[in-house]
Amino acid sequence: MTNITLDEARAQLMALQRKMAAYEHAMGLIYYDGCTTAPKETADNRAVSMSILSEEIYRQSTSDETAELLEFLDANRDGLSLDEKRMVYLLLRDIRNMKKIPMDEYIAYQELLVKAEDVWERAKNASDFNMFCPYLEDLFAYQKKFAKYIDPDMDPYDHCLNEYEEGLNMETCDRFFERLRAGIVPLLKRISEAEQVDDSIRHGSFPAADQEELSYYLMKMIGLDLGHVGLSTTEHPFTTSLGSHHDERITTHYYENDFAYSMYSVVHEGGHALYDTGSADELAYTVLDGGVSMSIHESQSRFYENIIGRSRAFCRLVFPELVRVFPEQMEGHYAEELYRAVNKAQPSLIRTEADELTYSLHIMVRYELEKRIMHDELEVKDLPEEWNRMYKEYLGIDVPDDKQGVLQDSHWASGLFGYFPSYALGNAYGAQFLAKMRETVDIDACIESGDFGPVNDWNREHIWQHGGRFKPSELLDRVYGAEFDPGYYINYLEEKYTELYGL
Amino acid sequence: MTNITLDEARAQLMALQRKMAAYEHAMGLIYYDGCTTAPKETADNRAVSMSILSEEIYRQSTSDETAELLEFLDANRDGLSLDEKRMVYLLLRDIRNMKKIPMDEYIAYQELLVKAEDVWERAKNASDFNMFCPYLEDLFAYQKKFAKYIDPDMDPYDHCLNEYEEGLNMETCDRFFERLRAGIVPLLKRISEAEQVDDSIRHGSFPAADQEELSYYLMKMIGLDLGHVGLSTTEHPFTTSLGSHHDERITTHYYENDFAYSMYSVVHEGGHALYDTGSADELAYTVLDGGVSMSIHESQSRFYENIIGRSRAFCRLVFPELVRVFPEQMEGHYAEELYRAVNKAQPSLIRTEADELTYSLHIMVRYELEKRIMHDELEVKDLPEEWNRMYKEYLGIDVPDDKQGVLQDSHWASGLFGYFPSYALGNAYGAQFLAKMRETVDIDACIESGDFGPVNDWNREHIWQHGGRFKPSELLDRVYGAEFDPGYYINYLEEKYTELYGL
Repeated sequence: MTNITLDEARAQLMALQRKMAAYEHAMGLIYYDGCTTAPKETADNRAVSMSILSEEIYRQSTSDETAELLEFLDANRDGLSLDEKRMVYLLLRDIRNMKKIPMDEYIAYQELLVKAEDVWERAKNASDFNMFCPYLEDLFAYQKKFAKYIDPDMDPYDHCLNEYEEGLNMETCDRFFERLRAGIVPLLKRISEAEQVDDSIRHGSFPAADQEELSYYLMKMIGLDLGHVGLSTTEHPFTTSLGSHHDERITTHYYENDFAYSMYSVVHEGGHALYDTGSADELAYTVLDGGVSMSIHESQSRFYENIIGRSRAFCRLVFPELVRVFPEQMEGHYAEELYRAVNKAQPSLIRTEADELTYSLHIMVRYELEKRIMHDELEVKDLPEEWNRMYKEYLGIDVPDDKQGVLQDSHWASGLFGYFPSYALGNAYGAQFLAKMRETVDIDACIESGDFGPVNDWNREHIWQHGGRFKPSELLDRVYGAEFDPGYYINYLEEKYTELYGL
Repeated sequence: MTNITLDEARAQLMALQRKMAAYEHAMGLIYYDGCTTAPKETADNRAVSMSILSEEIYRQSTSDETAELLEFLDANRDGLSLDEKRMVYLLLRDIRNMKKIPMDEYIAYQELLVKAEDVWERAKNASDFNMFCPYLEDLFAYQKKFAKYIDPDMDPYDHCLNEYEEGLNMETCDRFFERLRAGIVPLLKRISEAEQVDDSIRHGSFPAADQEELSYYLMKMIGLDLGHVGLSTTEHPFTTSLGSHHDERITTHYYENDFAYSMYSVVHEGGHALYDTGSADELAYTVLDGGVSMSIHESQSRFYENIIGRSRAFCRLVFPELVRVFPEQMEGHYAEELYRAVNKAQPSLIRTEADELTYSLHIMVRYELEKRIMHDELEVKDLPEEWNRMYKEYLGIDVPDDKQGVLQDSHWASGLFGYFPSYALGNAYGAQFLAKMRETVDIDACIESGDFGPVNDWNREHIWQHGGRFKPSELLDRVYGAEFDPGYYINYLEEKYTELYGL
């Protein structure tokens, strides 16, 4: 980096990130197209382009030229803005970590991932863990090795947690899950002994075209800008930014026998989209664009889905639209029934279908299992047995087969160890945001009147605009003006379910 | 290229083309997404990614490394297969041409294109040629300069024609258009004096959802593999391959007052898709994948749209499906009415809406005007006056404004000079294919019975499988076993319209 001024290097920093954003736009769109529009038998064709483009992005983002630029900027960090410092820090961290992994092992791991995802899908369909077991063993083995390469002094599972939530460790998670379990388990027991909720309002016949109308109503209502946020249908709902937060896509899935599934998918993904599109414009095409971490992202999606979307005020707001879209199906029903139906709590087998109360128990099972494997306290081959034992212990239910048990999630097949806790943390972060927001915003009144402005403005000011500027713990400290405290979440659940079930 | 074996270089040739295909997959998909699915206000975001990716593809495909590889292969061409020789020839030709243009002029021209397309759109909406005139002057000026850089000894308009149809020149076009005009103009005069066709069957109320059902019926009927060919809706219908011919997309546009517009768009784009997807599998991810040129491509799309799709046999085949999809609208109508309605001939203002007979006259106007400008025999500022004069002379109609006149097509704003003749040539190539195919296939019997197998097999064997292996004139010679002869097309039109109008 001789003969380059700091200003030139700063311009190159922005150009580098724009280029990476363009590649990610391309890769993200090829994936999105595969889930939404592409003809059925074109996956192999997509795989060819994806592997070439991902190699290109890897090659360019880890090139000597890129490393030199970032090291130069890092050495001259006093001349950088706060945002630029953060960009350089994040980019350099990734490159340095990447370079600690021997190239041949990295390539072998990438190849393993492609095979593992394929085998997992077939193993799941066959409900046969043994098929998948050797691949999962290899995946865990690589993750342990990589953790040692990158952070030889850090506990390998702490390293995993850190990958998805900068600064997170087992100590925080253990304390968090312990308090959560102590709060949820007795509450669930009391609910199981109470009169059960009638959720017949959500079941019936709800044509997809009508549900789509409801989707657009919900998107507009929660404040999404439809000029920049699109809706499509996919097997599993998700949200993605393409290029920058100026082009955001959410997806849903319509089950014609239950309108509530898509309704809450749209509000959940809509929460992700509000967060992404709320990034300050100057962050577009940089690594700081969009949300900072998985759990802060989930704090927003679950805030809109659960805290707002499953509130009594929201059910009252939306009910007239449900009557308009489904006049016959809603005949004789009323808003309070909707509120009760979408908050029915009961232990179930599948994480993604779990209610707000039992959801975190599903996460705890996965967290404990991952931790024990990463610490060599459990062998991969014993996972199904342990999974089933823990579901009995934590949720009180029997797992009939691997498909509905240990093979249900795709995360492990994709090498995502340490990812699950962020879902549960997101729930808890959101409850503390709620308490803070209530200090200045009359949330229920806003929601019931359909005025999302004050709620969204609060989130935008405190959370969305900052994108990845602050690390998650810093952001939380700034917003809360205090430490993160899972007590808020436990109180929130306690109050809500005590009232709902008349405990 | 020291220390590289020929086999290594051959492998690199394939890798280079796969990489270019991946970039084109990305760029093509971003464009397609913009036309089909993307939220309305995301064009600027797409433009950022597109300009970065196109710079990347330009940089990589014209790099010294790429040039060295291709020169090495060219020097050792005796060791290459026929297909490899053709790949090297095409890639090298493009790089050599590119390198003859000074980089600053190339960049200035690319910037001009972006502006010109934007100004053209606004000028068209305002029906004001003067707004667009200075941009079009610059575009023509650059094209003249570039033609001189690349082929100093070639006529600049011959160079333009060659860009879209390898080997085409004015001599061929002049002879072709002269014969065509001599055949069409008197025929059109006789038609204008005959009893006019009643086309009321195509007008009415046809819901888009029902038309979509008809689209899929047509796609399956003509033999498209829906596992690899998708359908979407856009403002203007088009066809695109993504990555390779294994993923093909066609689009249509539904006008609810006229089902025939989309019906023939689907069959037309379906013809392009049949051609692309019919490429031999070993051509996938190479520059030989898909069709060889614009006019051979149009020969296939127009073969399916007009020669087959507007035949009596096809109208008889499709009519029962129309009755099934539109039972009320088709009541009291019969197949012969459909045949007559979709073949109604009359001079009109807009090229894309022209019938089979008058279409080529629209092309001739553009051809003559382009030729005169490239030869400095006409000034750009005088284009509207000349356009209107020629429409009166060729088609006998008055042009009311620039929007419906000289500004109607986007081609010139995109710098596509020399492109139009390929549409007319495609029509004529198709008629000669028809004559040849008839020697071994009972086409009408196949079509009327809904058995496209023999027709498609013939096209696959003679045309589709070869992709870009042969240059267009070579391909025609191989198929025809004779020279291209526009007489086939004139006879085809003569016979069809004489019978239809009872002349």
